[in-house]
Amino acid sequence: MPLMSLEKPPAQPGQVWAHVGQPFVGREYDLIVLGAGRMGAACALYLRRLAPRRSLLLIEEGGLPNEDGATLLSPGVWSALTVPPERRAEAQWTRAQLAGALAPDPSLNLSFQARPLLELAAAGGAGWEAVLDVLGRDPAPTLPAGLADLQALPWARLDAQAARYRPGALALACAQAAIGAGADLMLNARAHLDGGGVGIERLSVTNTHQIVVHETHRLRAGRVVVALGAAGPGTVEHDLGLHTTHARAYRQFPRLNHPSTEQTPTLRAAGLTLRPQHGGFTLVPAIHHRDPAGYEPGGGRLTGVPTGLRRETLEDLVAAMDALPALATGALELGRSLMDVPGAWFALPGGDPDGLPRHEEVAPGVHLLLGGPHADTLGLAVAYDLAATVAGTQQRPWAGRPG
Amino acid sequence: MPLMSLEKPPAQPGQVWAHVGQPFVGREYDLIVLGAGRMGAACALYLRRLAPRRSLLLIEEGGLPNEDGATLLSPGVWSALTVPPERRAEAQWTRAQLAGALAPDPSLNLSFQARPLLELAAAGGAGWEAVLDVLGRDPAPTLPAGLADLQALPWARLDAQAARYRPGALALACAQAAIGAGADLMLNARAHLDGGGVGIERLSVTNTHQIVVHETHRLRAGRVVVALGAAGPGTVEHDLGLHTTHARAYRQFPRLNHPSTEQTPTLRAAGLTLRPQHGGFTLVPAIHHRDPAGYEPGGGRLTGVPTGLRRETLEDLVAAMDALPALATGALELGRSLMDVPGAWFALPGGDPDGLPRHEEVAPGVHLLLGGPHADTLGLAVAYDLAATVAGTQQRPWAGRPG
Repeated sequence: MPLMSLEKPPAQPGQVWAHVGQPFVGREYDLIVLGAGRMGAACALYLRRLAPRRSLLLIEEGGLPNEDGATLLSPGVWSALTVPPERRAEAQWTRAQLAGALAPDPSLNLSFQARPLLELAAAGGAGWEAVLDVLGRDPAPTLPAGLADLQALPWARLDAQAARYRPGALALACAQAAIGAGADLMLNARAHLDGGGVGIERLSVTNTHQIVVHETHRLRAGRVVVALGAAGPGTVEHDLGLHTTHARAYRQFPRLNHPSTEQTPTLRAAGLTLRPQHGGFTLVPAIHHRDPAGYEPGGGRLTGVPTGLRRETLEDLVAAMDALPALATGALELGRSLMDVPGAWFALPGGDPDGLPRHEEVAPGVHLLLGGPHADTLGLAVAYDLAATVAGTQQRPWAGRPG
Repeated sequence: MPLMSLEKPPAQPGQVWAHVGQPFVGREYDLIVLGAGRMGAACALYLRRLAPRRSLLLIEEGGLPNEDGATLLSPGVWSALTVPPERRAEAQWTRAQLAGALAPDPSLNLSFQARPLLELAAAGGAGWEAVLDVLGRDPAPTLPAGLADLQALPWARLDAQAARYRPGALALACAQAAIGAGADLMLNARAHLDGGGVGIERLSVTNTHQIVVHETHRLRAGRVVVALGAAGPGTVEHDLGLHTTHARAYRQFPRLNHPSTEQTPTLRAAGLTLRPQHGGFTLVPAIHHRDPAGYEPGGGRLTGVPTGLRRETLEDLVAAMDALPALATGALELGRSLMDVPGAWFALPGGDPDGLPRHEEVAPGVHLLLGGPHADTLGLAVAYDLAATVAGTQQRPWAGRPG
């Protein structure tokens, strides 16, 4: 190990408060990050690396990963196909981080797999090829039989650089690496912004499974990063009395029990992404638009029968059935109530269903960090960008976009 | 009056059942129209004219006009600016109907006013002129002082053909004319589709203001037209166990107490339509996308203060404040709860926020008729088209689009 420079004091692992049985004495922090999803955990890690002299506390309302957050359910599909050209360098840097640069310790396993993404379409255009040509090349991406109707989808484009990983494992790896680099972590603690600091409620669970506040603290903080996913904009609006343009959308991930292998490419067709997982597919419907404030998701009906899929998701799947006949079979798990189909709220930066990850200083010293639908491909770069901004660093490790 | 042909028997006015005190003996009808909003009432009238030998019953759940429907709150702004070229002939025919051809009896007053629509924009293009040129011509549309910032909106286009009217009065006039032409009408009756016919619940109100079912009937019908507005798709889905692609959106119409006169043009700017009404303006926000199934509208907050405007409407108004400074003044009625701001559900044909009115036979003998956001400009032509289809008439009174 080289000698540490003045900027890099020897990393003493930080402290972890996982439950209220571990006593916590409130203190001042230079930096507090709210939310240990992948965006918050990554930002905490990069902050430890870029500003190692500033004390940091990472606060998470649930466990790690939080089962109610979007991180755990995110598809974890990296592909530069849908990223605007001027953000490609950041996407490539994110890919390198995911592939091992972020957490070289092999115990921090993101299940990273370089696997092509095959997009199929009814109509072609520049950059598209005949699907049979693409499937005939060597090495050929293999398509499970009976999944797609290639006569309905005669055009294809292949992202040979694409990859898959587990966003939940990414959050965990980032949080562990951040702690290893000196960050403190508090789990099971709800936080709110409180002029110049953060109010904390440490939560505990009663015998009757009620969540109760065990104790409260008020911490002063130099800067606060709000990385609460879809709840972030609402938190800064409620706590700071300001208005943002951000919105959120509920996304369900139905299961399709059509056989896949580790080698099956990620597929995209008819507006859906099909991510091979656990020998089948996880379906990722497109986000068409934000959901209105106050909306509570509920199950829809298919020819009168209640399902766990909401109506909007059902419509997307019904519309895709001609192109993807497997959707019209018993392989599709419809569920009977909302509880049966995994789903989560996603932030829509700028209210845009295609909004890119971003950060912004919504009040002096308070930074809102949003992942959203493109977090799989660009999230780490934006988390790094915020950490570098807070650290006062002009340089960015990707080319072509100095901060 | 000319001699009646065989196709036009002398019009005996139909019967009206306004409340449960008027006894009703169930009978068979050739045609039943569900919903006496403007689409249903107009279709009933055209059906009486095109198929006068077929008995017709028009059924409405509320009064006429129904205070819960979209008809009463629709802006009533006719303008061909946003209609695709191939539908212009229908739009022109609709305008002629509104201007007097539909109900030449002056007692049926739609408050039709030919008034220009002035659209203002930040950026121009083909068909756009400098706003000062448009305002300087003779006769010049006069813009109320302080409403719009012409430096922020330097481009304009004028629809000199535009008009305004009251959609609620249109529904009433159509229903009255339909009764005059022999249609029966039942008010305060809830209806559902029931294989080959219609089930009816005649409603009455108790001393404690509860709505109760007074009596039920089952009527056989040759054909049924479902013209229940935003509730139409849900009704055919629920009653017939089928699925449609239609959706709905909730639209609020906030009041802006900035002075207008009878001569003030209808304005469109920054995504809003400003309809002069009662000496001020009714604001008509754009419909951006459908609302998800199960959504219940609720009031939003502006810098922490509860308002009667939902969040999405607030955002539209906040985004328009620079171009329309009057929105940032006390002239805008924010309300304190949803009850304070008029709003209604609108059908979105095809789930499209810009969907045009349409009809379709969703099951043998069951026709779904949808108005939606363009009903002001194209609704009557589509209601006529359905009536002509049911009557078996190939001809359409507008040129260029034989049915």
